[in-house]
Amino acid sequence: EFAKIDHGRHSRAGKPEAVFAEFKTPEEVVRIVKAQIERCGESLVTRASSEHIEAILKEFSDCDVKVNRKGRVVAIRRRLKEYSAESRPVGKVAILTAGTSDIPVAEEAAATAEFLGMEVLKFYDVGVAGIHRLIEPVKKIREAKVDAVIAIAGMEGALPSVVAGLVDRPVIAVPTSIGYGVNLNGLTTLFAMLQSCSSGVAVVNIDNGFGAAVFAYLIARTARL
Amino acid sequence: EFAKIDHGRHSRAGKPEAVFAEFKTPEEVVRIVKAQIERCGESLVTRASSEHIEAILKEFSDCDVKVNRKGRVVAIRRRLKEYSAESRPVGKVAILTAGTSDIPVAEEAAATAEFLGMEVLKFYDVGVAGIHRLIEPVKKIREAKVDAVIAIAGMEGALPSVVAGLVDRPVIAVPTSIGYGVNLNGLTTLFAMLQSCSSGVAVVNIDNGFGAAVFAYLIARTARL
Amino acid sequence: EFAKIDHGRHSRAGKPEAVFAEFKTPEEVVRIVKAQIERCGESLVTRASSEHIEAILKEFSDCDVKVNRKGRVVAIRRRLKEYSAESRPVGKVAILTAGTSDIPVAEEAAATAEFLGMEVLKFYDVGVAGIHRLIEPVKKIREAKVDAVIAIAGMEGALPSVVAGLVDRPVIAVPTSIGYGVNLNGLTTLFAMLQSCSSGVAVVNIDNGFGAAVFAYLIARTARL
Amino acid sequence: EFAKIDHGRHSRAGKPEAVFAEFKTPEEVVRIVKAQIERCGESLVTRASSEHIEAILKEFSDCDVKVNRKGRVVAIRRRLKEYSAESRPVGKVAILTAGTSDIPVAEEAAATAEFLGMEVLKFYDVGVAGIHRLIEPVKKIREAKVDAVIAIAGMEGALPSVVAGLVDRPVIAVPTSIGYGVNLNGLTTLFAMLQSCSSGVAVVNIDNGFGAAVFAYLIARTARL
Amino acid sequence: EFAKIDHGRHSRAGKPEAVFAEFKTPEEVVRIVKAQIERCGESLVTRASSEHIEAILKEFSDCDVKVNRKGRVVAIRRRLKEYSAESRPVGKVAILTAGTSDIPVAEEAAATAEFLGMEVLKFYDVGVAGIHRLIEPVKKIREAKVDAVIAIAGMEGALPSVVAGLVDRPVIAVPTSIGYGVNLNGLTTLFAMLQSCSSGVAVVNIDNGFGAAVFAYLIARTARL
Amino acid sequence: EFAKIDHGRHSRAGKPEAVFAEFKTPEEVVRIVKAQIERCGESLVTRASSEHIEAILKEFSDCDVKVNRKGRVVAIRRRLKEYSAESRPVGKVAILTAGTSDIPVAEEAAATAEFLGMEVLKFYDVGVAGIHRLIEPVKKIREAKVDAVIAIAGMEGALPSVVAGLVDRPVIAVPTSIGYGVNLNGLTTLFAMLQSCSSGVAVVNIDNGFGAAVFAYLIARTARL
Amino acid sequence: EFAKIDHGRHSRAGKPEAVFAEFKTPEEVVRIVKAQIERCGESLVTRASSEHIEAILKEFSDCDVKVNRKGRVVAIRRRLKEYSAESRPVGKVAILTAGTSDIPVAEEAAATAEFLGMEVLKFYDVGVAGIHRLIEPVKKIREAKVDAVIAIAGMEGALPSVVAGLVDRPVIAVPTSIGYGVNLNGLTTLFAMLQSCSSGVAVVNIDNGFGAAVFAYLIARTARL
Amino acid sequence: EFAKIDHGRHSRAGKPEAVFAEFKTPEEVVRIVKAQIERCGESLVTRASSEHIEAILKEFSDCDVKVNRKGRVVAIRRRLKEYSAESRPVGKVAILTAGTSDIPVAEEAAATAEFLGMEVLKFYDVGVAGIHRLIEPVKKIREAKVDAVIAIAGMEGALPSVVAGLVDRPVIAVPTSIGYGVNLNGLTTLFAMLQSCSSGVAVVNIDNGFGAAVFAYLIARTARL
Ligand SMILES: Nc1ncnc2c1ncn2[C@@H]1O[C@H](COP(=O)(O)O)[C@@H](O)[C@H]1O
Ligand SMILES: Nc1ncnc2c1ncn2[C@@H]1O[C@H](COP(=O)(O)O)[C@@H](O)[C@H]1O
Ligand SMILES: Nc1ncnc2c1ncn2[C@@H]1O[C@H](COP(=O)(O)O)[C@@H](O)[C@H]1O
Ligand SMILES: Nc1ncnc2c1ncn2[C@@H]1O[C@H](COP(=O)(O)O)[C@@H](O)[C@H]1O
Ligand SMILES: [Mg+2]
Ligand SMILES: [Mg+2]
Ligand SMILES: [Mg+2]
Ligand SMILES: [Mg+2]
Ligand SMILES: [Mg+2]
Ligand SMILES: [Mg+2]
Ligand SMILES: [Mg+2]
Ligand SMILES: [Mg+2]
Repeated sequence: EFAKIDHGRHSRAGKPEAVFAEFKTPEEVVRIVKAQIERCGESLVTRASSEHIEAILKEFSDCDVKVNRKGRVVAIRRRLKEYSAESRPVGKVAILTAGTSDIPVAEEAAATAEFLGMEVLKFYDVGVAGIHRLIEPVKKIREAKVDAVIAIAGMEGALPSVVAGLVDRPVIAVPTSIGYGVNLNGLTTLFAMLQSCSSGVAVVNIDNGFGAAVFAYLIARTARL
Repeated sequence: EFAKIDHGRHSRAGKPEAVFAEFKTPEEVVRIVKAQIERCGESLVTRASSEHIEAILKEFSDCDVKVNRKGRVVAIRRRLKEYSAESRPVGKVAILTAGTSDIPVAEEAAATAEFLGMEVLKFYDVGVAGIHRLIEPVKKIREAKVDAVIAIAGMEGALPSVVAGLVDRPVIAVPTSIGYGVNLNGLTTLFAMLQSCSSGVAVVNIDNGFGAAVFAYLIARTARL
Repeated sequence: EFAKIDHGRHSRAGKPEAVFAEFKTPEEVVRIVKAQIERCGESLVTRASSEHIEAILKEFSDCDVKVNRKGRVVAIRRRLKEYSAESRPVGKVAILTAGTSDIPVAEEAAATAEFLGMEVLKFYDVGVAGIHRLIEPVKKIREAKVDAVIAIAGMEGALPSVVAGLVDRPVIAVPTSIGYGVNLNGLTTLFAMLQSCSSGVAVVNIDNGFGAAVFAYLIARTARL
Repeated sequence: EFAKIDHGRHSRAGKPEAVFAEFKTPEEVVRIVKAQIERCGESLVTRASSEHIEAILKEFSDCDVKVNRKGRVVAIRRRLKEYSAESRPVGKVAILTAGTSDIPVAEEAAATAEFLGMEVLKFYDVGVAGIHRLIEPVKKIREAKVDAVIAIAGMEGALPSVVAGLVDRPVIAVPTSIGYGVNLNGLTTLFAMLQSCSSGVAVVNIDNGFGAAVFAYLIARTARL
Repeated sequence: EFAKIDHGRHSRAGKPEAVFAEFKTPEEVVRIVKAQIERCGESLVTRASSEHIEAILKEFSDCDVKVNRKGRVVAIRRRLKEYSAESRPVGKVAILTAGTSDIPVAEEAAATAEFLGMEVLKFYDVGVAGIHRLIEPVKKIREAKVDAVIAIAGMEGALPSVVAGLVDRPVIAVPTSIGYGVNLNGLTTLFAMLQSCSSGVAVVNIDNGFGAAVFAYLIARTARL
Repeated sequence: EFAKIDHGRHSRAGKPEAVFAEFKTPEEVVRIVKAQIERCGESLVTRASSEHIEAILKEFSDCDVKVNRKGRVVAIRRRLKEYSAESRPVGKVAILTAGTSDIPVAEEAAATAEFLGMEVLKFYDVGVAGIHRLIEPVKKIREAKVDAVIAIAGMEGALPSVVAGLVDRPVIAVPTSIGYGVNLNGLTTLFAMLQSCSSGVAVVNIDNGFGAAVFAYLIARTARL
Repeated sequence: EFAKIDHGRHSRAGKPEAVFAEFKTPEEVVRIVKAQIERCGESLVTRASSEHIEAILKEFSDCDVKVNRKGRVVAIRRRLKEYSAESRPVGKVAILTAGTSDIPVAEEAAATAEFLGMEVLKFYDVGVAGIHRLIEPVKKIREAKVDAVIAIAGMEGALPSVVAGLVDRPVIAVPTSIGYGVNLNGLTTLFAMLQSCSSGVAVVNIDNGFGAAVFAYLIARTARL
Repeated sequence: EFAKIDHGRHSRAGKPEAVFAEFKTPEEVVRIVKAQIERCGESLVTRASSEHIEAILKEFSDCDVKVNRKGRVVAIRRRLKEYSAESRPVGKVAILTAGTSDIPVAEEAAATAEFLGMEVLKFYDVGVAGIHRLIEPVKKIREAKVDAVIAIAGMEGALPSVVAGLVDRPVIAVPTSIGYGVNLNGLTTLFAMLQSCSSGVAVVNIDNGFGAAVFAYLIARTARL
């Protein structure tokens, strides 16, 4: 077999069976998903192009397939052993974006969190250029008692700093590659977030909505074990 | 007053009163600590030089002062309103380092976590060049049911990737500036950690043991609210 | 003569006679200042070490010498043709810093602006980690009807973005080299400021308090011509 | 609503209602413009592709729509509450480019400045390789008593330095991404401009003609308040 | 002749006659291969596009042509003077990849090594996120007594470090450009590998499967001289 | 115990017991060496300062201690179980440097290779600015039938390319941090070596003479197993 | 007029009338060429696409138009005032390339040098991986008594260093963007050339064959004034 | 002998016998100079510290030793075979600096050029912030009919561009490491110079006054052969 898939990953390390589709052909993705489904009954495909999505929909017509096109995520589950919110650790995560262009990354995070059984609160386009836009989201986040906050921004990436100064939950910062000139494909945003003058912020790779959601899930899961 | 200290930070956002001493004179640090003690009864000073430490010990002889010289951290608390583990959310964190040169960063994290009332498990010098050294720490981490793992490494920074593949807790990765040549003062290590092929890893700034501990504390605190 | 000093600069281009002392010996600085005083009656020395300052104080004992040690600036004026606020374009500038470590850069700006006849309003340590600290400064800036705002920050450099979203004056952003790890000696801060999601922000070189003040002065001067 | 548009921005912070079209679909842009028009009667779209332009022209046929294709800017205003130069702060800005390839950025600036009610003087292709080409523009800028100068250049970006040595107005420098080899998409030009040996220069992001014009407008507006 | 081909290279320096096709037209590649075949009876073309491959197949129909499409390598040999394993130094090399996306680089290495008469053991998709996947390959490598190990990885590039800690053979590390965000087209992976905390690792250029195989061959050849 | 020393490393992975002294105190180095000596009878300390060297000489006066001050390497062996060239795999390595300033790195490599039982041929200051200087070394290398060549250079780092074009052995390239301006502490040299237009070259970290020698030893050891 | 063409450039500064076509439309290029022809009777267009070339051929059918497609250069001269070698300073330049992929840059240089009336000697594909290939070119360069040598290389860029060690003429180095991985679009090559351990080398921008030829021409012209 | 000195360099390649002292001990420098003096009667030491200078003065008291402390250059010649301007190719070079801080690099160039028998014209502190300062130097350069111009600048490095637009001689640009913030130790200046919009400019390494002078000498020497 061309790929040694790591089927024990979820039980051993609490992480989902997932496939990063970007550098793989539709055939390769389908083959890996099939192997994962056989073992664990579920699989999550991220960075899926429409070609990947069509191939999956065609192949797994007997499964429960949930597609998030904006977030480029596909969740596949065997019908029989269907996922139910009750059967897993449940948690709550708030997802904020600074601008409207950051929404695809937010949707990658949202689709991943939902796949993992979390409740998701979305607050999009609430960046710091108009600080008053943050008042309501912060109020709701406090009331909702979320397990973690995912703050997604491009450009100067100030959102996580400001949010972490206002809430008492772990803030997972996701830099996006949105910007131009000195943005350097998100490097500037990443570095600004790592330099945050607020503590309580940790960062994942540029555009890595998936990783942020898995991390939020591990926080919530740990709280419920 | 030369500095607008943000005294409400802990109650509002769950973060400790802390002072980053590096770019400040001993007098400036003492003045800020005094203001924090007056308001909240406690203060944590990081990146303290021996000059900073002496000035604090002299000034706050009527307080409870705990010095961690390896980690360059000083914790100051008013005697009366003394800290007691019972009165706060308690949690458990495991701190791993890849090498012995990473220990100062680990001690910054440990001192911070202890200041915040956490129990700390230390596993130092267990890097991936000898993968067998990781077996026991991983076993103990699983048994101890920690809230979070802090994995600290310099050089190629592979420790968090490997650890996250073996445990089901959030792994907070701290790159250190230990290395030479292409290390680029820790940038290479940081980038390697952000590129981790394991999910379940989030990263803080280079050498930021303090930030990792605050983040671990927020995870544990969230689990207990 | 070893240096072709550009004595007509002020009348021709509205800029002050100034000397950047850092790469020059005390003797070189004194010689250049002397030539400037002879022509225009005044000179401003920036990035002065204590050696530079002593040499100037000794040499120009018959002049009006004003020393700002925190900002490392020395202003020298001939006694007879002494500066008077009335004889020049007057303006008002607000100078904000995110942290206490940014104050030296702020003082370089303040000393320069005062040398140029401006009124200076200072708001130090009002960074975005505690957004409530900005409320009063913004109120005062609005009431004072300043000509320009100078926003000085290190770390993630979010201050100018947030300020520009709250005031209707030009915001001159000064990145400082305060930070560590991914700060890259202020590059990260600079890039974040240039990526500001607020418009109304222009940026000068890292730690360039002098340049920010001259720019603010040109704005005020233009408004009064 | 998918986007929290910041409608109070102009009255509160003196900035125009503007949409950066590049990462948005024509539908998204139209929706945001519509909301802005409803509130404030006007909207400025930058980085518009021809698809964006067609969609706007079709949707806002009952509005006053001004298209600058070279600058990729569209200005939309409600017919009734039409803009009139008299009703606003008026100012004058000179826009210079070093080469002919920098003209699109200059036109973004010009279209923005005109939208904001400014008079625009254009001097294109007057870079420093033939310094004599600058004589006439500088003479005209002095006579016209502009509020600010926008100097746009790619390559080695020396134009703002030279211009600031010759005029007594604030010079807003815009680096462009024109060049090759070590140009690094405009980074070299940006850094050269920030390193300007002339004071009186402040810089905006690479290719940010919009931001330069808003900044010039704030200078002129401040002078007239 | 437009190109001075270095026909004596193999006898003098033990390296194969090879052509890097990427920046050359099919006609140029065919012309160079023809000259090499005439002199030495063989030629290896790497980074071949399908256009290159078709042109070679058409032109050298009287030769022995072996195409590896995944690795983009074509090996051409004159029929008469056909290669036989016996007539050359023989060796054994193990090729490991961290992920499935690294396989094309592995196949470039494999095709090159086979062209040079080596036996190739392949272990694909055995990266460190699931460290247990390495157990079997390491066992087989030890038993097979290979001359060298080629460890190919993208992302954080930890595979060579871990492998070098487990085997006693020279490990040639090949960073690949697989990754996103801070990957920087493989630079992060390269730097991590050069920073390896294991000794016994040397590195070749990003994606340079060819170079790794030639190096492995020189090791085996040296051992047999 | 503060450090988990990896005593089985040599038998398991063919690498020497070694300590990188640079970020460790003399006491820490002595403690680690002691533990290694106890287990394996030998230890190699690299990047030793004179303080490290004195501490070792004092502590291990009953051992065989060999100091290479230029290379900053100390080799320690228990007297009884003294090393003898016969009892190990023996090999031959040629070490070349481009300039005289590269000699400390060469001596680090030489001391390491000798500790491992290899015969070392040294050719210093034979860089490519005077290509005729390479004629004799190449002749001698061919005659000596070395197992590997270590080519050490700073500046433009062309030495390994030229050498690999002339010899048929594996060339291990070591970039040094010798140079100025665009040298970037050896990064330019490293990149030039990785870009070598000769195949048969693999590279180790900047200034890593130790790593090059271990790699050469593994080649020779493999040839003799 | 949209462009202030600098018609006096040649007589004043010895440089040719030239147009960099890359960021200009065919119409813009034609318009600029027309203006140059009118004034000086000649024009050189570099980085011309086939669209640019067709537009020029069509427009200037009454002129002498010389097209070099490999070098992407077009030379246009008015028929009447035709160029004659006698009427100008004449010189000789040798152009060397390391590989065949560098030839387009060499042809840009050759076409420019010929336009300026120089005699050109070409030596292509003589890079340092096979140092013997340089023997004949160096001999011919010495005999021909050239005014300058242009050495063009990609990859590790060692050619100019080696050549400058063998000839006594100024060596103008041109880095090309040929390479992959750490090549960084020619930056590595550029830096290696600037770090040359040979003196007598000066460098122009990446791929700047035009600039190298103008520089060689100025050397030859100076020698003949 | 520890160093293979390249004594034939001058006769073969027209370059001076020179020693870069920076990474060498005084003893090493003296030893190399001695060998060069024996062979060729002369030697030039650059980047000499005062320790190097004292050692040379002491050792070569029987030679003609010329020390340039500002330029850190020492020229040593045997008394008997003393240098005379008549016996060599003579030329003229103009050396310009933008600021006074660039003078040490200019003096390195001047001392080298004089050692090589050239006449040197110096124009210091004539940078582009006050363009009128360039008028006189340009006039003198034209009258003097120099062989080459060396333009030395830090900061934004615009001097060579402007000069090359005004004179018809080859301009050798030397970036210096003078500046701060985005200067990046001269990288910004270097890149700006390579991006020069004037042709007729070639560049040497940062602070490389020596290399610029040797290059100018080769131009003048070529013109006289
Ligand atoms: N060692 C540390 N590393 C990173 N951030 C720190 C550290 N110590 C304190 N901080 C943060 O810096 C803030 C204090 O900054 P300052 O006002 O400059 O003392 C604290 O509130 C923390 O959020
Ligand atoms: N061409 C431009 N360059 C830089 N910033 C712009 C430009 N056009 C608009 N903006 C800014 O981006 C904001 C709109 O961002 P968005 O909400 O993504 O449309 C505006 O309020 C402006 O501050
Ligand atoms: N895939 C490859 N990666 C790196 N270097 C290669 C590759 N293929 C060929 N080469 C090298 O490039 C040389 C051929 O370059 P060229 O003359 O441009 O075809 C060969 O002799 C090899 O040393
Ligand atoms: N100041 C300098 N800057 C650049 N290269 C220099 C300098 N001085 C000497 N060199 C070069 O370095 C060579 C001497 O190098 P080394 O053998 O290390 O002394 C000389 O032959 C020159 O080519
Ligand atoms: Mg928005
Ligand atoms: Mg260790
Ligand atoms: Mg503070
Ligand atoms: Mg032009
Ligand atoms: Mg996999
Ligand atoms: Mg030498
Ligand atoms: Mg070739
Ligand atoms: Mg000056």
